[in-house]
Amino acid sequence: MPHINLSNEYPGIRSLFVYRPETARPLNDLVQTLLHNPHPTLSAGERELIATYVSRLNTCKYCCNIHGAIAQHQLGNNAEIVQQVLANPETAPISDKLKALLKIAAKVQSGGKNVTADDVTLARDEGATDIEIHDAVLIAAAFCMYNRYVDGLATWQPDDAEIYDKMGEQRAREGYLTPPFKITQN
Amino acid sequence: MPHINLSNEYPGIRSLFVYRPETARPLNDLVQTLLHNPHPTLSAGERELIATYVSRLNTCKYCCNIHGAIAQHQLGNNAEIVQQVLANPETAPISDKLKALLKIAAKVQSGGKNVTADDVTLARDEGATDIEIHDAVLIAAAFCMYNRYVDGLATWQPDDAEIYDKMGEQRAREGYLTPPFKITQN
Repeated sequence: MPHINLSNEYPGIRSLFVYRPETARPLNDLVQTLLHNPHPTLSAGERELIATYVSRLNTCKYCCNIHGAIAQHQLGNNAEIVQQVLANPETAPISDKLKALLKIAAKVQSGGKNVTADDVTLARDEGATDIEIHDAVLIAAAFCMYNRYVDGLATWQPDDAEIYDKMGEQRAREGYLTPPFKITQN
Repeated sequence: MPHINLSNEYPGIRSLFVYRPETARPLNDLVQTLLHNPHPTLSAGERELIATYVSRLNTCKYCCNIHGAIAQHQLGNNAEIVQQVLANPETAPISDKLKALLKIAAKVQSGGKNVTADDVTLARDEGATDIEIHDAVLIAAAFCMYNRYVDGLATWQPDDAEIYDKMGEQRAREGYLTPPFKITQN
Protein backbone atom coordinates (compact mmCIF):
# COMPACT_ATOMS: atom_id res chain seq x y z
CA MET A 1 0.00 0.00 0.00
CA PRO A 2 1.39 3.45 -0.86
CA HIS A 3 2.80 5.47 2.07
CA ILE A 4 0.41 8.35 1.29
CA ASN A 5 -3.19 8.49 0.04
CA LEU A 6 -2.79 8.89 -3.72
CA SER A 7 -6.58 8.81 -4.37
CA ASN A 8 -6.15 6.87 -7.61
CA GLU A 9 -5.28 3.34 -8.68
CA TYR A 10 -2.78 3.87 -11.44
CA PRO A 11 0.41 1.82 -11.10
CA GLY A 12 3.91 3.07 -10.21
CA ILE A 13 4.94 6.57 -11.18
CA ARG A 14 1.64 7.16 -13.03
CA SER A 15 -0.16 7.24 -9.67
CA LEU A 16 2.27 9.94 -8.49
CA PHE A 17 1.79 11.93 -11.71
CA VAL A 18 -1.98 11.95 -11.15
CA TYR A 19 -1.52 12.88 -7.49
CA ARG A 20 0.84 15.82 -8.10
CA PRO A 21 0.46 17.30 -11.61
CA GLU A 22 2.76 20.24 -10.78
CA THR A 23 5.79 17.95 -10.58
CA ALA A 24 4.47 15.48 -13.18
CA ARG A 25 4.94 17.98 -15.98
CA PRO A 26 8.74 18.54 -15.69
CA LEU A 27 9.28 14.86 -14.81
CA ASN A 28 7.48 13.81 -18.00
CA ASP A 29 9.22 16.49 -20.07
CA LEU A 30 12.59 15.20 -18.84
CA VAL A 31 11.96 11.55 -19.67
CA GLN A 32 10.45 12.52 -23.03
CA THR A 33 13.61 14.49 -23.87
CA LEU A 34 16.01 11.85 -22.60
CA LEU A 35 14.38 8.72 -23.98
CA HIS A 36 11.82 9.46 -26.69
CA ASN A 37 12.65 12.63 -28.63
CA PRO A 38 14.97 12.27 -31.64
CA HIS A 39 18.66 11.93 -30.70
CA PRO A 40 21.67 12.66 -32.92
CA THR A 41 23.05 9.11 -32.62
CA LEU A 42 21.48 6.94 -29.90
CA SER A 43 18.27 5.13 -30.80
CA ALA A 44 15.29 5.26 -28.44
CA GLY A 45 15.77 1.53 -27.87
CA GLU A 46 19.39 2.01 -26.78
CA ARG A 47 18.40 4.79 -24.39
CA GLU A 48 15.56 2.69 -22.96
CA LEU A 49 18.06 -0.13 -22.35
CA ILE A 50 20.18 2.23 -20.22
CA ALA A 51 17.08 3.25 -18.23
CA THR A 52 16.02 -0.38 -17.81
CA TYR A 53 19.47 -1.52 -16.69
CA VAL A 54 19.83 1.25 -14.08
CA SER A 55 16.32 0.53 -12.79
CA ARG A 56 17.33 -3.10 -12.30
CA LEU A 57 20.49 -2.04 -10.43
CA ASN A 58 18.23 0.06 -8.18
CA THR A 59 15.89 -2.97 -7.83
CA CYS A 60 12.86 -0.91 -8.90
CA LYS A 61 10.39 -3.48 -10.23
CA TYR A 62 7.96 -1.03 -11.82
CA CYS A 63 10.58 1.04 -13.69
CA CYS A 64 12.60 -1.99 -14.78
CA ASN A 65 9.50 -3.75 -16.12
CA ILE A 66 7.94 -0.78 -17.87
CA HIS A 67 11.16 0.50 -19.46
CA GLY A 68 12.13 -3.07 -20.35
CA ALA A 69 8.78 -3.36 -22.16
CA ILE A 70 9.28 0.00 -23.90
CA ALA A 71 12.82 -1.02 -24.92
CA GLN A 72 11.46 -4.29 -26.30
CA HIS A 73 8.90 -2.46 -28.45
CA GLN A 74 11.49 0.12 -29.57
CA LEU A 75 13.80 -2.73 -30.61
CA GLY A 76 11.39 -4.52 -32.98
CA ASN A 77 9.65 -6.49 -30.21
CA ASN A 78 12.95 -8.10 -29.20
CA ALA A 79 12.45 -9.29 -25.60
CA GLU A 80 15.60 -11.41 -25.69
CA ILE A 81 17.98 -8.45 -25.99
CA VAL A 82 16.41 -6.82 -22.91
CA GLN A 83 16.79 -9.98 -20.83
CA GLN A 84 20.40 -10.42 -21.97
CA VAL A 85 21.32 -6.84 -21.05
CA LEU A 86 19.74 -7.33 -17.62
CA ALA A 87 21.59 -10.62 -17.14
CA ASN A 88 24.99 -9.31 -18.27
CA PRO A 89 25.61 -6.36 -20.61
CA GLU A 90 29.09 -7.66 -21.45
CA THR A 91 27.74 -10.77 -23.18
CA ALA A 92 24.55 -9.18 -24.60
CA PRO A 93 24.16 -8.76 -28.39
CA ILE A 94 24.69 -4.99 -28.32
CA SER A 95 27.44 -2.72 -29.64
CA ASP A 96 30.72 -2.31 -27.73
CA LYS A 97 29.88 1.39 -27.53
CA LEU A 98 26.60 0.68 -25.73
CA LYS A 99 28.41 -1.73 -23.40
CA ALA A 100 30.83 1.06 -22.47
CA LEU A 101 27.94 3.49 -21.92
CA LEU A 102 26.16 0.93 -19.70
CA LYS A 103 29.38 0.59 -17.69
CA ILE A 104 29.37 4.36 -17.13
CA ALA A 105 25.67 4.21 -16.21
CA ALA A 106 26.39 1.55 -13.58
CA LYS A 107 29.12 3.75 -12.08
CA VAL A 108 26.70 6.69 -11.93
CA GLN A 109 24.13 4.47 -10.21
CA SER A 110 26.64 3.60 -7.49
CA GLY A 111 27.63 7.30 -7.10
CA GLY A 112 28.62 10.11 -9.47
CA LYS A 113 32.24 10.25 -8.32
CA ASN A 114 32.72 6.60 -9.27
CA VAL A 115 32.86 7.49 -12.98
CA THR A 116 36.57 7.57 -13.88
CA ALA A 117 38.53 9.10 -16.74
CA ASP A 118 39.32 5.52 -17.79
CA ASP A 119 35.60 4.71 -18.09
CA VAL A 120 35.16 7.72 -20.35
CA THR A 121 38.27 6.89 -22.41
CA LEU A 122 36.97 3.35 -22.93
CA ALA A 123 33.64 4.72 -24.20
CA ARG A 124 35.43 7.14 -26.53
CA ASP A 125 37.64 4.32 -27.83
CA GLU A 126 34.44 2.47 -28.74
CA GLY A 127 33.21 5.51 -30.68
CA ALA A 128 31.05 7.29 -28.08
CA THR A 129 30.61 11.04 -28.58
CA ASP A 130 30.56 13.63 -25.80
CA ILE A 131 26.78 13.99 -26.19
CA GLU A 132 26.35 10.22 -25.82
CA ILE A 133 28.50 10.16 -22.68
CA HIS A 134 26.58 13.15 -21.30
CA ASP A 135 23.23 11.54 -22.01
CA ALA A 136 24.24 8.15 -20.58
CA VAL A 137 25.27 9.90 -17.34
CA LEU A 138 22.06 11.93 -17.19
CA ILE A 139 19.76 8.99 -18.03
CA ALA A 140 21.44 6.95 -15.27
CA ALA A 141 21.20 9.85 -12.82
CA ALA A 142 17.56 10.50 -13.74
CA PHE A 143 16.59 6.88 -13.09
CA CYS A 144 18.26 7.09 -9.68
CA MET A 145 15.57 9.74 -9.11
CA TYR A 146 12.57 8.02 -10.75
CA ASN A 147 13.38 4.69 -9.05
CA ARG A 148 13.64 6.31 -5.59
CA TYR A 149 10.44 8.27 -6.18
CA VAL A 150 8.46 5.16 -7.15
CA ASP A 151 9.85 2.98 -4.31
CA GLY A 152 10.17 5.74 -1.69
CA LEU A 153 6.40 6.24 -1.72
CA ALA A 154 5.69 2.50 -2.00
CA THR A 155 3.53 2.77 -5.12
CA TRP A 156 1.51 -0.17 -6.45
CA GLN A 157 3.72 -2.20 -8.82
CA PRO A 158 1.78 -4.86 -10.74
CA ASP A 159 3.12 -8.40 -11.14
CA ASP A 160 1.26 -9.03 -14.41
CA ALA A 161 3.68 -8.92 -17.38
CA GLU A 162 0.78 -8.22 -19.75
CA ILE A 163 0.12 -4.88 -18.07
CA TYR A 164 3.70 -3.76 -18.61
CA ASP A 165 3.62 -4.97 -22.21
CA LYS A 166 0.45 -3.00 -22.94
CA MET A 167 1.77 0.16 -21.27
CA GLY A 168 5.18 -0.32 -22.91
CA GLU A 169 3.68 -0.60 -26.38
CA GLN A 170 1.77 2.65 -25.79
CA ARG A 171 4.82 4.58 -24.56
CA ALA A 172 7.08 3.27 -27.35
CA ARG A 173 4.52 4.52 -29.86
CA GLU A 174 3.30 7.75 -28.25
CA GLY A 175 6.10 8.85 -25.95
CA TYR A 176 5.55 10.01 -22.39
CA LEU A 177 3.21 12.97 -22.71
CA THR A 178 -0.11 11.28 -23.41
CA PRO A 179 -2.61 10.12 -20.73
CA PRO A 180 -2.11 6.55 -19.44
CA PHE A 181 -4.39 3.61 -20.03
CA LYS A 182 -6.87 3.11 -17.22
CA ILE A 183 -5.32 0.12 -15.48
CA THR A 184 -6.37 -0.50 -11.89
CA GLN A 185 -6.00 -3.13 -9.21
CA ASN A 186 -9.66 -4.15 -9.55
CA MET B 1 38.62 18.78 -15.50
CA PRO B 2 35.19 17.75 -16.79
CA HIS B 3 34.98 14.31 -18.45
CA ILE B 4 33.62 15.88 -21.66
CA ASN B 5 34.33 19.15 -23.46
CA LEU B 6 31.63 21.48 -22.15
CA SER B 7 32.94 24.51 -24.12
CA ASN B 8 32.13 26.92 -21.28
CA GLU B 9 33.50 27.82 -17.87
CA TYR B 10 30.38 27.99 -15.74
CA PRO B 11 30.57 26.02 -12.47
CA GLY B 12 28.75 22.80 -11.59
CA ILE B 13 25.37 22.06 -13.11
CA ARG B 14 25.29 25.47 -14.86
CA SER B 15 28.04 24.27 -17.22
CA LEU B 16 25.86 21.27 -18.10
CA PHE B 17 22.81 23.47 -18.65
CA VAL B 18 24.76 25.61 -21.13
CA TYR B 19 26.13 22.50 -22.84
CA ARG B 20 22.76 20.76 -23.28
CA PRO B 21 19.83 23.22 -23.29
CA GLU B 22 17.36 20.48 -24.31
CA THR B 23 17.71 18.76 -20.93
CA ALA B 24 18.39 22.00 -19.02
CA ARG B 25 14.82 23.16 -19.50
CA PRO B 26 12.97 20.31 -17.73
CA LEU B 27 15.74 20.06 -15.10
CA ASN B 28 15.32 23.74 -14.25
CA ASP B 29 11.52 23.51 -14.36
CA LEU B 30 11.67 20.63 -11.89
CA VAL B 31 13.90 22.39 -9.35
CA GLN B 32 11.87 25.59 -9.73
CA THR B 33 8.67 23.66 -8.94
CA LEU B 34 10.17 21.67 -6.07
CA LEU B 35 12.16 24.39 -4.31
CA HIS B 36 11.12 27.88 -5.38
CA ASN B 37 7.48 28.08 -6.44
CA PRO B 38 4.91 28.74 -3.69
CA HIS B 39 4.11 25.66 -1.57
CA PRO B 40 0.98 25.06 0.52
CA THR B 41 2.95 24.64 3.76
CA LEU B 42 6.72 24.18 3.38
CA SER B 43 8.81 27.36 3.07
CA ALA B 44 11.42 27.65 0.33
CA GLY B 45 14.06 27.67 3.07
CA GLU B 46 12.82 24.36 4.50
CA ARG B 47 12.80 22.77 1.04
CA GLU B 48 16.31 24.08 0.32
CA LEU B 49 17.50 22.54 3.60
CA ILE B 50 16.26 19.13 2.41
CA ALA B 51 18.12 19.59 -0.90
CA THR B 52 21.28 20.73 0.90
CA TYR B 53 21.22 17.85 3.37
CA VAL B 54 20.75 15.19 0.67
CA SER B 55 23.55 16.77 -1.40
CA ARG B 56 25.85 16.48 1.63
CA LEU B 57 24.88 12.81 2.07
CA ASN B 58 25.79 12.31 -1.60
CA THR B 59 29.06 14.25 -0.98
CA CYS B 60 28.33 16.62 -3.87
CA LYS B 61 30.34 19.76 -3.04
CA TYR B 62 28.79 22.03 -5.67
CA CYS B 63 25.13 21.18 -4.88
CA CYS B 64 25.65 21.21 -1.10
CA ASN B 65 27.36 24.61 -1.22
CA ILE B 66 24.99 26.30 -3.65
CA HIS B 67 21.79 25.01 -2.04
CA GLY B 68 23.24 25.72 1.41
CA ALA B 69 23.80 29.32 0.27
CA ILE B 70 20.27 29.53 -1.19
CA ALA B 71 18.81 28.09 2.04
CA GLN B 72 20.78 30.65 4.04
CA HIS B 73 19.36 33.51 2.00
CA GLN B 74 15.83 32.06 2.12
CA LEU B 75 16.13 31.82 5.92
CA GLY B 76 16.95 35.47 6.61
CA ASN B 77 20.69 35.07 5.96
CA ASN B 78 20.96 32.47 8.73
CA ALA B 79 24.14 30.49 7.95
CA GLU B 80 24.16 28.86 11.38
CA ILE B 81 20.95 26.88 10.82
CA VAL B 82 22.37 25.41 7.60
CA GLN B 83 25.58 24.31 9.30
CA GLN B 84 23.63 22.78 12.20
CA VAL B 85 21.37 20.80 9.87
CA LEU B 86 24.44 19.50 8.01
CA ALA B 87 26.16 18.59 11.30
CA ASN B 88 23.11 16.85 12.82
CA PRO B 89 19.46 17.50 11.94
CA GLU B 90 18.32 16.02 15.27
CA THR B 91 19.96 18.80 17.32
CA ALA B 92 19.42 21.63 14.77
CA PRO B 93 17.02 24.49 15.64
CA ILE B 94 14.31 23.31 13.23
CA SER B 95 10.80 21.94 13.75
CA ASP B 96 10.26 18.30 14.72
CA LYS B 97 8.25 17.97 11.52
CA LEU B 98 11.23 19.04 9.39
CA LYS B 99 13.47 16.66 11.35
CA ALA B 100 11.09 13.80 10.47
CA LEU B 101 11.04 14.86 6.79
CA LEU B 102 14.87 15.00 6.75
CA LYS B 103 14.90 11.48 8.18
CA ILE B 104 12.70 10.32 5.29
CA ALA B 105 14.97 12.18 2.84
CA ALA B 106 18.02 10.36 4.21
CA LYS B 107 16.26 7.03 3.74
CA VAL B 108 15.42 7.93 0.13
CA GLN B 109 19.07 8.90 -0.47
CA SER B 110 20.18 5.45 0.67
CA GLY B 111 17.51 3.74 -1.50
CA GLY B 112 13.78 4.21 -2.03
CA LYS B 113 12.80 0.92 -0.39
CA ASN B 114 14.47 2.02 2.86
CA VAL B 115 11.58 4.37 3.65
CA THR B 116 9.38 2.52 6.17
CA ALA B 117 5.77 2.91 7.29
CA ASP B 118 7.22 3.88 10.69
CA ASP B 119 9.20 6.76 9.14
CA VAL B 120 6.01 8.04 7.55
CA THR B 121 3.99 7.58 10.76
CA LEU B 122 6.61 9.55 12.70
CA ALA B 123 6.38 12.41 10.18
CA ARG B 124 2.56 12.37 10.39
CA ASP B 125 2.72 12.39 14.20
CA GLU B 126 4.82 15.56 13.92
CA GLY B 127 2.14 17.13 11.73
CA ALA B 128 3.44 16.39 8.22
CA THR B 129 0.80 16.27 5.47
CA ASP B 130 0.76 13.82 2.57
CA ILE B 131 1.91 16.56 0.19
CA GLU B 132 4.86 17.35 2.48
CA ILE B 133 5.85 13.68 2.67
CA HIS B 134 5.49 13.38 -1.11
CA ASP B 135 7.61 16.45 -1.72
CA ALA B 136 10.31 15.44 0.78
CA VAL B 137 10.64 12.09 -1.04
CA LEU B 138 10.75 13.73 -4.48
CA ILE B 139 13.21 16.47 -3.45
CA ALA B 140 15.52 13.80 -2.00
CA ALA B 141 15.14 11.63 -5.10
CA ALA B 142 15.73 14.59 -7.41
CA PHE B 143 18.97 15.51 -5.65
CA CYS B 144 20.14 11.92 -6.05
CA MET B 145 19.88 12.80 -9.75
CA TYR B 146 21.34 16.33 -9.73
CA ASN B 147 24.26 15.25 -7.50
CA ARG B 148 25.13 12.29 -9.74
CA TYR B 149 24.84 14.45 -12.86
CA VAL B 150 27.22 17.11 -11.47
CA ASP B 151 29.78 14.61 -10.12
CA GLY B 152 29.36 11.96 -12.85
CA LEU B 153 30.65 14.40 -15.47
CA ALA B 154 33.30 15.85 -13.11
CA THR B 155 32.18 19.47 -13.47
CA TRP B 156 34.23 22.37 -12.11
CA GLN B 157 33.21 22.98 -8.48
CA PRO B 158 34.68 26.19 -7.04
CA ASP B 159 36.27 26.30 -3.56
CA ASP B 160 35.53 30.00 -3.04
CA ALA B 161 32.62 30.48 -0.58
CA GLU B 162 32.00 33.95 -1.95
CA ILE B 163 31.03 32.54 -5.35
CA TYR B 164 28.38 30.29 -3.79
CA ASP B 165 27.09 33.14 -1.66
CA LYS B 166 26.69 35.39 -4.69
CA MET B 167 25.01 32.68 -6.77
CA GLY B 168 22.87 31.65 -3.77
CA GLU B 169 21.62 35.18 -3.21
CA GLN B 170 20.62 35.40 -6.88
CA ARG B 171 18.74 32.07 -6.88
CA ALA B 172 16.95 32.81 -3.57
CA ARG B 173 15.71 36.07 -5.09
CA GLU B 174 15.05 35.08 -8.72
CA GLY B 175 14.47 31.34 -8.66
CA TYR B 176 16.07 28.93 -11.12
CA LEU B 177 14.89 30.13 -14.51
CA THR B 178 17.06 33.23 -15.04
CA PRO B 179 20.52 33.24 -16.69
CA PRO B 180 23.48 32.68 -14.32
CA PHE B 181 26.09 35.25 -13.38
CA LYS B 182 29.18 35.02 -15.52
CA ILE B 183 31.60 33.34 -13.10
CA THR B 184 34.60 31.63 -14.63
CA GLN B 185 37.81 30.00 -13.50
CA ASN B 186 39.88 32.90 -14.85
